[in-house]
This record gives sequence, structure tokens and C-alpha cells, in this order.
Amino acid sequence: MQRSWLIETLRQTVEEQDTWEGRAFDIFIQILIVLSLISFSFQTLPNLSESWERRLWLFEIFTVGIFTIEFALRWLVSTDKKKYWKSGWTYIDLLAIAPFYISLALSSYGIRMDGRWLRVFRLLRVFRTFKLLRFGSAVDRLTTAFHLIWKELVLFLSVALILIYVAGVLIYYVENLAGSKDFQSVFDGLWWAVVTLTTVGYGDIVPVTPLGRLLTFFILLIGLGIIAVPSGLLAAALSQAHRGNQKEQVNKD
Amino acid sequence: MQRSWLIETLRQTVEEQDTWEGRAFDIFIQILIVLSLISFSFQTLPNLSESWERRLWLFEIFTVGIFTIEFALRWLVSTDKKKYWKSGWTYIDLLAIAPFYISLALSSYGIRMDGRWLRVFRLLRVFRTFKLLRFGSAVDRLTTAFHLIWKELVLFLSVALILIYVAGVLIYYVENLAGSKDFQSVFDGLWWAVVTLTTVGYGDIVPVTPLGRLLTFFILLIGLGIIAVPSGLLAAALSQAHRGNQKEQVNKD
Amino acid sequence: MQRSWLIETLRQTVEEQDTWEGRAFDIFIQILIVLSLISFSFQTLPNLSESWERRLWLFEIFTVGIFTIEFALRWLVSTDKKKYWKSGWTYIDLLAIAPFYISLALSSYGIRMDGRWLRVFRLLRVFRTFKLLRFGSAVDRLTTAFHLIWKELVLFLSVALILIYVAGVLIYYVENLAGSKDFQSVFDGLWWAVVTLTTVGYGDIVPVTPLGRLLTFFILLIGLGIIAVPSGLLAAALSQAHRGNQKEQVNKD
Amino acid sequence: MQRSWLIETLRQTVEEQDTWEGRAFDIFIQILIVLSLISFSFQTLPNLSESWERRLWLFEIFTVGIFTIEFALRWLVSTDKKKYWKSGWTYIDLLAIAPFYISLALSSYGIRMDGRWLRVFRLLRVFRTFKLLRFGSAVDRLTTAFHLIWKELVLFLSVALILIYVAGVLIYYVENLAGSKDFQSVFDGLWWAVVTLTTVGYGDIVPVTPLGRLLTFFILLIGLGIIAVPSGLLAAALSQAHRGNQKEQVNKD
Repeated sequence: MQRSWLIETLRQTVEEQDTWEGRAFDIFIQILIVLSLISFSFQTLPNLSESWERRLWLFEIFTVGIFTIEFALRWLVSTDKKKYWKSGWTYIDLLAIAPFYISLALSSYGIRMDGRWLRVFRLLRVFRTFKLLRFGSAVDRLTTAFHLIWKELVLFLSVALILIYVAGVLIYYVENLAGSKDFQSVFDGLWWAVVTLTTVGYGDIVPVTPLGRLLTFFILLIGLGIIAVPSGLLAAALSQAHRGNQKEQVNKD
Repeated sequence: MQRSWLIETLRQTVEEQDTWEGRAFDIFIQILIVLSLISFSFQTLPNLSESWERRLWLFEIFTVGIFTIEFALRWLVSTDKKKYWKSGWTYIDLLAIAPFYISLALSSYGIRMDGRWLRVFRLLRVFRTFKLLRFGSAVDRLTTAFHLIWKELVLFLSVALILIYVAGVLIYYVENLAGSKDFQSVFDGLWWAVVTLTTVGYGDIVPVTPLGRLLTFFILLIGLGIIAVPSGLLAAALSQAHRGNQKEQVNKD
Repeated sequence: MQRSWLIETLRQTVEEQDTWEGRAFDIFIQILIVLSLISFSFQTLPNLSESWERRLWLFEIFTVGIFTIEFALRWLVSTDKKKYWKSGWTYIDLLAIAPFYISLALSSYGIRMDGRWLRVFRLLRVFRTFKLLRFGSAVDRLTTAFHLIWKELVLFLSVALILIYVAGVLIYYVENLAGSKDFQSVFDGLWWAVVTLTTVGYGDIVPVTPLGRLLTFFILLIGLGIIAVPSGLLAAALSQAHRGNQKEQVNKD
Repeated sequence: MQRSWLIETLRQTVEEQDTWEGRAFDIFIQILIVLSLISFSFQTLPNLSESWERRLWLFEIFTVGIFTIEFALRWLVSTDKKKYWKSGWTYIDLLAIAPFYISLALSSYGIRMDGRWLRVFRLLRVFRTFKLLRFGSAVDRLTTAFHLIWKELVLFLSVALILIYVAGVLIYYVENLAGSKDFQSVFDGLWWAVVTLTTVGYGDIVPVTPLGRLLTFFILLIGLGIIAVPSGLLAAALSQAHRGNQKEQVNKD
């Protein structure tokens, strides 16, 4: 299929990263996504002045405008229209602009809808330009690493979940029987177990009885090893996947 | 021993996972266990309405009913009755239903007993269906890894315990002499040491004197390395057990 | 040198672990040390009844009595008296009983001295019976591992210390200029930096200004990697020391 | 170029670490830097007595005096004056003393400037004497390790940032809709996400609704693995860089 020179240039700009224009376009869109997310965060501030609300609203219109043009361009330059509508990226791009138009349409009928939080989906678009960094080999190694250790990951996760449940129930009974007001139900116990075993430790619910503290000590003794192993294992497996890569290259040479 | 076709089919459903019925039965029991544990958690809520209490009670009767039928079936289909009564699983299954019947019997004599927390033992039954996932090789590697590093684990654990004790006593003296009300005895110091060295950090007991804070700094400097090493070591040993596995397979080929 | 049968039997009991009596003696002393430390912790409780204080005091007399007999026995059975007085263990054993006698002597002159905290040194005696577990090979591997990575450890520690200092000064200026009352001097900033970068996070001093929170985010981004690497590195080096051990054994075979 | 014996001796003292005088000089300067930073920290204390303020001021004059002499000496003994003014170290040294003279000059014109915090830059001078420890090989290995895994580091960092953003927005909506006062805008949500996913967990902003707590649980389940992997990976890569070093040495032999 012969295509005009203009569309070919546009295609290279919009879809590829080999040319100077392509990279610039991708970086521009990326920055716009990030700015749009920051602007959204500001819009949630409780005491925002009207003038700032207006400015953020105008920026939102500008952002959606650019994204709409980009969406149209991507459709225009796609060589295979069928494939275009089958790609998941198309719907992610649509998700980034559709809420704006829908809430605009609804508000013209007098229906107010807070669709601002849907803007979060624009984050998904960030992944599109991840190809910029050519992470291919790193993702391959990550897949290899997961393939190596998924059984261990599931095993440790299962044991961790069981431990959290048992810890939550035990602390509830130990603290509740001693009259502590913090642990009102098993759910408080479970929340405590999650917060403690991940070592977050907010301190909103804390055991105060000697028995509860002793229990915490033993749970942490067992639990810390279990909770921290998966990430260490993933790191070790990734390191191993690296060595595998290197050996293959040596064998090829 | 020739057995009727019905019992053989039942046996395959209850005891094995190779057939479609066997897997479905296992998953059904698994889900029931989890639902029964969630239902138990809801029963501990302080302000539960009477209608919900009734519903949860009916669900409990249903659950125990199913578990009782399952228990009877497992006995019925077992080829070797002696072996059946020697297996630990039998008593775990019994533990999941016995408390219900005992508290029912006791209440008919007017004795009230809160045996609900015994339902926690149902969690043990979760392990029964772990075989579903065929974790054999992962558990083998875990055993190999533990065998490799148990000495280091015991060494680091011993040093960690000693460090926690010394830290607890030191902070108690340092803070108590300076007049802080938070550290009333060595036990408060020990609780602080456990919470701090595991990096949970609730913030319920915190050193406020300059000397106490300096001490915390040095304890963390030494302690973090000691506390975090075991899980990293286990991860590394698991990774090594993996490589061992792979080499064996290569040698076999 | 010919020695009487009684002394030889005593020596084997007190100093060695090969015989049944030797092991039993060591375990008895070990348990007594732990009990003595627990008893010490109870003595620091603020509202201890007089009767309990008395019981703990009697137990302390009993403990020191046994330790004194043990100390005398060790001297009696030692084959080389000079070497005995040169060993560090002798002075650790002395440290475990001397404070009791000194405070007793002083109190007879009317001088009251709270020497109870000196009992913490009994903890050192725990190390003596570590030989029970024959940790030799594990300690060797630990030494090998440290030898391998000490440069990295010092490097990461130095960078961590510098990061803590810089973080503490920056947060002090950022928060103090914004009028936060929490950060009153650079020392509060340093305390915050230690508590935050080790991920303990008590929450006693927390940045409340947007700039302070943004700074925290960036400090954690950089700091977490630096703080967590040393323990991971030690784990990896220990694992490597293991592999070295195994290869040596293979080469010997 | 022939140089007088005095200047040559001075040069060896100031610039090199091979001689006894050189090492002593470096350690002296190092200690002075650390003391100057401690003195600076004390100067920020809110209720400092006038006499102490005076003493710290005198010590500051002394420190800057020594640093000025050192600066002059380094210029004097440099063999290549052009290279001296091109070196970054020269400007770091200047940064350590210039603020003192500038604020002195300004105050003589009646302009008060709090330039004390600029003293933080003296910390940079600490790096100068890092060569004392001859960290060359460790830094080389760190560079090799970074070169090996930078793609994975960027990948995990990107995913971590995205996760923090998504977590912050989700918790804001979940908690805000339920009427919690803690999460007033997405920025509070982001602060919570940073504090929670790094497991710092101050507890200043905590989800209180069941849905918010459930969300926290799932975010931690996914997030902990992602946040902890980079440091584990760096540790594994460093360990690998070590092995690479050893093999090279073996091959050379």
C-alpha cells in the first residue's frame, strides 16, 4: 500500500522512537501525562481558590485536547485499522479522554458526575512510552526469574497469609480478654497483624498486655523471615537470570 | 480387596485430585474453610445485629454439617481403617468439628462455653489441600536450603536475642535515670527493643533523652544488619538449592 | 601430671561437653543464667510487692551461690593455673558474681549502691556455652564473608552516615522555616533521619509541610537502597562462603 | 621544576597519604570537619546559653582559620596552578570557608544573614579524605554492579513510583468518601503511600475504614516485593562483581 509522504512522516513521529521527532513526541506526551496527574492531585485540595480551580480546568481542557489529537493521529497513521481497534493500547488511550467528554455531555443535561478520579487511568498510558527505555531484556529476565521461583513465591505467600490470620485471631483473644479497648474484633486483630508483620507499624492499634507483647515478639520472630524472603528470592533469581544471559552470550561467541 | 463401584468413585472424589470430581471437591472444601473463618471473624464484631448473628450461626451449622459428612466419607472410603486413625489429618479434621458438638452438648446441660475461637484450628485443614498445588519440589528446595544454613540461622537468632536483651536493659537505665515515664521496667525496654530492632516502630514507647536517642542510633546501626541477614540468607540458599536442582537435571540428561 | 580421679571427673563435667555430665552441667548453668536475667528484669518492675521482692532476692543469692561454686570448681580443675588467670572467660565469670559481693560489702558499711544492672554482664556468660552448638564452621564462614565485603560495608556505612546527617540538617531547615514546632534543632532532625531511614518510623517527629514531605520522599528513595544493601550483601557473601566450603570439600574427595 | 625542600615536605603532608605526616594531617582535618558539623548542630539548639554560643562561635573562627590555612597551603604546594583551579575539590574547599567571610563582610555593612546552614557543605570535604581508606576496588565493583542491573533498577523504580501514585489516589477516594478527616487531598494520600510502602509507618495518617484497610493490605502485598527488590538486587550484583574479580585474578595467575 502506497502512502503519502505526510502520513508516513506523521506515523514515524507518533508511533516510532527511532527518529528525533518520534522521541520528542513521546517525551512531550509523557510529560503531559505526568502534569495532568499533578494537576488532578491539586484539584482535590480542599481549600482551592476559584482562580486556581479555573486555571487547572483550562489545563485539563488543553491536556484532553492534545490527547484527542494524538488519538486521532494514531488512528490516521495506523496501517492496519482492524489491528488498531484490537490493540489494548487503543482503549487505554480512550480511557484517558472519554471520561472528560462523558462528564461534559452529562453536565449539559444537568447531571453532575465527579469523573475526575477516572483520570488515574492516564497513568496506564505511561507504560506506552516505556518502550522508550527499551526495557525488553530486563522484562525478559524478570519473566525468567518469576518462572524459576513462582512456586516458592506462592508457598511463602500462602504461609504469610495463614500467619497473618492466626496472628490476628490470637492477638484479638489475648488482648480482648485482658480488657484492651483497641482490639474490638478479629478484624482489628487482622489489621494489626498486617501492619505489624509488614513492619509498617503505624501504632494506631498496639498490644498493651504482657501476654500480647510476648505474642507479638514470637510472631515477629517467625513472621519477619517469611515476609522478607520473597523479595530477596526475587532479587537472587533476577541475578541468576543475568548470569544465564551472560553464559548464553559466551556460548554464542 | 474388592470394593463396590460407588465407594471407589467416592474415594476418588474425596481423596484424590486426579479426577475432575476430586479437584472440585477439594476446592469446594477449601472455599468452605475460608468462608467459615471469615464468618467466625464477623461473629467477633461487638455491635452485631441479632439477625446477622442468626445468619452466621446458621452458616456455622451448615459448615459443620458439611465437614461432618466429609469426615464420615473419608472414614468410609479409607482402604485401611487402622492407618486412618493413625493419620494426623484425621485429628485435624476432628478438631474442626468437635468443638461445635462439645459446646452444643455442654449448653444442653446449661454450661456456656465460648469455643468459637477453636474454629481457628480449621485453618490447619487448609494445609490438607495444599497438595493441590503440588508444592513438592518447592518444599524440597526449602528443606535443602534450611539444611545448608541452619547453623547461621541459629547463630544470628542467638545474637539477635542477646542484642534485644542488652538493648532493652540499656534503654531502660538510660531513659529511666533521666526521668522518662515511658520506660517503667526492663520489660518496657525489651518491648521497645523488639519493636525497634524489627523496624516495626509503633511509637508507643519512644526514647526522649539525647542519650537514649544516641543509644538507639548505635543499636540500630548494629542491629539492622543482624536482624535482616537471616531472611536474605534463606533467599540466597533457596536460590542455590535451585541451581543445585538444575545441575542434577543436566547431569541426568 | 597425675591427678586424682575425683578432680578429673569434675574437670570433665565442668569443662567438657563430650560426656553426659558435661552437657547436663552446661545446660544447667545456661538455664540459670537466663533465669537470673529474667529475675533481674522482674526486679525492675515499679510496683513489686515486698513478698515477691524477697523471693527474687533469695533466688539471686541462690544464683550467685551456684556461680561462685562453679567459679571455684573451674579454678580447681584447671590444669594450668596461669593460663586460667589469663583467659578472658575467667573475668567474665568474675563479672557475673563480683557486683553482688561488692554491693553486699558496701551495704555493710551503710553505702547503698544499685549494682543490679551489672547483672547484665551475665549475658556474656551465655557465649561460653555457645560451644555446645559447635558453631565453628558457621563462624568461619561469617569471618570469610566479612573478609570478602568489609570494604563495601564501610563504604555503604559511611555513605549512610553522611546521608543521615544531610537529611537531618535539610529537614530541620525546611520544617523549622515553615514554623513546625517538632524540629527544634538539628538534633531533632538527626533523630528523625535515623528513625526514618531505618524505616522504624515511630511517628514522634514527623514532617508536616509539603516541602518537608517531598524531601522525605526523595531521601527515602535514595536512602532505602543504601541502608538495606549491607545486610543483603552479608547474606550473599555468606552464601558464597558456603559454596566455597563445598568446592573445597569436593576437591579434597 | 626544582622546588625547595620545605614546599616539597609541605606538599607531601598536605596532598599525600604515604607519609606519617600526610596521614596525620588528613586525620586532623577530617576530625575538624566532623567537630565543626557537631558544633553547627549545637548552634541550632533553641535555648542555648550566651556563654556556650560564644564558645561555639570561637570554635567556628578557629575551624575556618585552619581551613583557610589549609586552603592556602594546598594552593602553595600545587605543582600545576591551572589544574588546581580546575579541580572540583578546590571549590568544595572554598565552599567550606567562603560563607563565613561573606557573612562577616555583610554584617559589617549591617546586613544580617543566617549562612550557618551553608556549613553543611563542609560534609563534602569528608569525601576528600575517603582516599585514606583506598576504596578503589569497592567503588569499581559498585560501578560494575550498577552497570549490570541499572535496567532492572529503573524498571522497579518506575513501577514503584506508579504504585505509590495509584495507592495514594485510591486511598484518598476510599477514605475521603467514608468521611475520614485524615485524607484531605490526593497529596495526603501520596504522603501516606510513601510512608506505608517504604514500611516507615509514622502513623500520622492512617486508614480507618474497613475498605481502606483492605486496600492497604493488598497494596502492601504487591508493594513490599517491588520496593525491597532493588536493594536485594544491588547486593546480589555486588556479590557477583566480587566473583568476577576473583575469577580474573585466578585467570591471571
